[in-house]
Amino acid sequence: MRTLHATCAGTAPTGEMTFELTATDGAARAGILRTAHGDVPTPAFMPVGTKGSVKALDPARLRELGTTILLGNTYHLHFRPGEELIDELGGLHSFMAWEGPILTDSGGFQVFSLRDTISAVDPEGVTFRSVYDGRAARFTPELAAEIQRLLGSDIAMCLDVCPSPDVSRAELEAATVLTTAWAARQLAAPRAEGQLVFGISQGGTDPDLRRRSTEEISGLGFDGHALGGLSVGEDRDVMLETVAWSAPLLPAERPRYFMGIGDPIGILEVVERGIDMFDCVLPTRLGRTGSALTWEGRLNLKNARFARDRRPLDEGCPCSACTRFTRAYLRHLVNQQELLGLILLSEHNVRFLLDLTADARGAIERGEFGSFKTAALDRLGSAAPVAGEEVSR
Amino acid sequence: MRTLHATCAGTAPTGEMTFELTATDGAARAGILRTAHGDVPTPAFMPVGTKGSVKALDPARLRELGTTILLGNTYHLHFRPGEELIDELGGLHSFMAWEGPILTDSGGFQVFSLRDTISAVDPEGVTFRSVYDGRAARFTPELAAEIQRLLGSDIAMCLDVCPSPDVSRAELEAATVLTTAWAARQLAAPRAEGQLVFGISQGGTDPDLRRRSTEEISGLGFDGHALGGLSVGEDRDVMLETVAWSAPLLPAERPRYFMGIGDPIGILEVVERGIDMFDCVLPTRLGRTGSALTWEGRLNLKNARFARDRRPLDEGCPCSACTRFTRAYLRHLVNQQELLGLILLSEHNVRFLLDLTADARGAIERGEFGSFKTAALDRLGSAAPVAGEEVSR
Repeated sequence: MRTLHATCAGTAPTGEMTFELTATDGAARAGILRTAHGDVPTPAFMPVGTKGSVKALDPARLRELGTTILLGNTYHLHFRPGEELIDELGGLHSFMAWEGPILTDSGGFQVFSLRDTISAVDPEGVTFRSVYDGRAARFTPELAAEIQRLLGSDIAMCLDVCPSPDVSRAELEAATVLTTAWAARQLAAPRAEGQLVFGISQGGTDPDLRRRSTEEISGLGFDGHALGGLSVGEDRDVMLETVAWSAPLLPAERPRYFMGIGDPIGILEVVERGIDMFDCVLPTRLGRTGSALTWEGRLNLKNARFARDRRPLDEGCPCSACTRFTRAYLRHLVNQQELLGLILLSEHNVRFLLDLTADARGAIERGEFGSFKTAALDRLGSAAPVAGEEVSR
Repeated sequence: MRTLHATCAGTAPTGEMTFELTATDGAARAGILRTAHGDVPTPAFMPVGTKGSVKALDPARLRELGTTILLGNTYHLHFRPGEELIDELGGLHSFMAWEGPILTDSGGFQVFSLRDTISAVDPEGVTFRSVYDGRAARFTPELAAEIQRLLGSDIAMCLDVCPSPDVSRAELEAATVLTTAWAARQLAAPRAEGQLVFGISQGGTDPDLRRRSTEEISGLGFDGHALGGLSVGEDRDVMLETVAWSAPLLPAERPRYFMGIGDPIGILEVVERGIDMFDCVLPTRLGRTGSALTWEGRLNLKNARFARDRRPLDEGCPCSACTRFTRAYLRHLVNQQELLGLILLSEHNVRFLLDLTADARGAIERGEFGSFKTAALDRLGSAAPVAGEEVSR
């Protein structure tokens, strides 16, 4: 397998394909990503299992909801409980009883979004204080590779430098230069057996820098590629325009991952622009705060108008919250801070995004993505994303 | 059904039996309690669904764990969301998507354990301030019957006066007198179709008062009987002695319910003394605070000794927490305050008590309860109950 993936990651693939494109519709793509723990039909939404658990959801339930791949956070797992312990206990899949594919991020996004904890960024790596105990810590591309090797994820992400959207052009450029240098180093580092490695481009929405970064990362020979440093607070139209012209710069035969989007409209927009994978904490975070994603828009269950509402969260939704419970009951649970309320809302929200993504895939396969998206946006009219929510991964 | 239950509750039953005794072993009993929503094999442990949800547990999961009957709290449901709303939405079973039997308490225990909120106890009822908003509220036997009628529970409990264990004998006596008078009034009040009504005896551990109360309540013709006002902080040996001599005063052909016990040893002790049903928040409360009930005793998962422990919570336990997860993982979840941790611990703990109770039933049927209990106590040696925990219903 090591050989296979060296081949896959190399510039002259000769063996099995990691990614098979099965249909295209305009820029939108349907495909199958093959990993050591199974195939992932794309487009794919990845629920986020931050600390080795998708918040409030049992892994068996996640599978029932239709989850095909989970995300785990290297930053958090490195500090608690530590990759050595997870390795000792058989790796992340075994640790969290999820036998399907897992993608781990590199920790870069957490380090750089916890900006106040950074003490220095140098060519070798980034020095910061852990949010867990304030102790000095350091991430390098080699360590990001090693942590993910020990976690044993199916897809490891490169350590990137993810600046805030308001930095100077000089800073943004420095971030892309470092991101490329680190990507090359991480690609050369040992990986777990069968583990794929994805590169990440930076450059914000700056046309020149994003293009340069995307081309540099694409040229390194990764198994897949991510657009990083977007959906971090910048103007959404500009962000989507950036996706539209930069996604095609990525190799068509490799999967494309947009990091950190999970509102229904945002998913449709990036899929239309050729993105295959995306992740977000939105569905579980909304669930824990008492809100539901529905075709009527977001419902805040605390609202008094649901007090006597006999309807399910979302008419026609086959999830076990919608087929068994009324909005009135869920509102009661949310208002009484009953844990079952946030569990059920989280289940429904994850299912909503998984179903939306699966439906998008079906529409691409039928060559009807355009009309599917138009109809979906019409229905979702009142479900506009709330600023900032999709940022928090 | 109305006629049937009038018959069952009367002094000259002629129709179907509500309770069938299938085996006895010393004072211990095995039986079947028949309710409008199904049969309950006894002895039966009842998980507590305080506000229309057993904390953190999906009703479908509860069924899988082996739950045969749930308890709901009249006090809480009366104030939030209110029995009229629940009735409008089809009753408590439909509201919470639990199609099995439900027993509702009367609210008496909550009112009297929230002692500081009581403004007056008079022959007609008790006046108090709601813990939800401080507003004046009043419970009478008739209201307790009416709330439970609207909730539509399978078993309604009588409004009783439950004093603290340190009251004067005069106060204790007054409580028993009022409890009997209220029981007679509640028995005469309308009930839901098919609803059984259980009386409750008081009298603390005072031999004379407990005997008098038990005989008075037994004489009224209820469908079942509870020992109330025990397990509220009194000496445990005296409490068990009281159960030993007062349970036989209750009609043998009706079910006997001990209110508020759920530690493993306590369950075995009351079953041995002829109790058929019991309830406690202990398993879910322990789960939410990171502790597990096991045959090795209670495990506090926060303990560092579990950090690298590959074993399941309880060797041989078939629950989905024990068959999938290590103590090390559960400790990680608990320490990181991941909701999945308390969900899994709650599931395991409920299952532990359900399995223990089912095993006790099997032992009674085989005429081996004595040796079963001895062996269980040996194994549970380090699992001594923590004072006070079993009190909180």
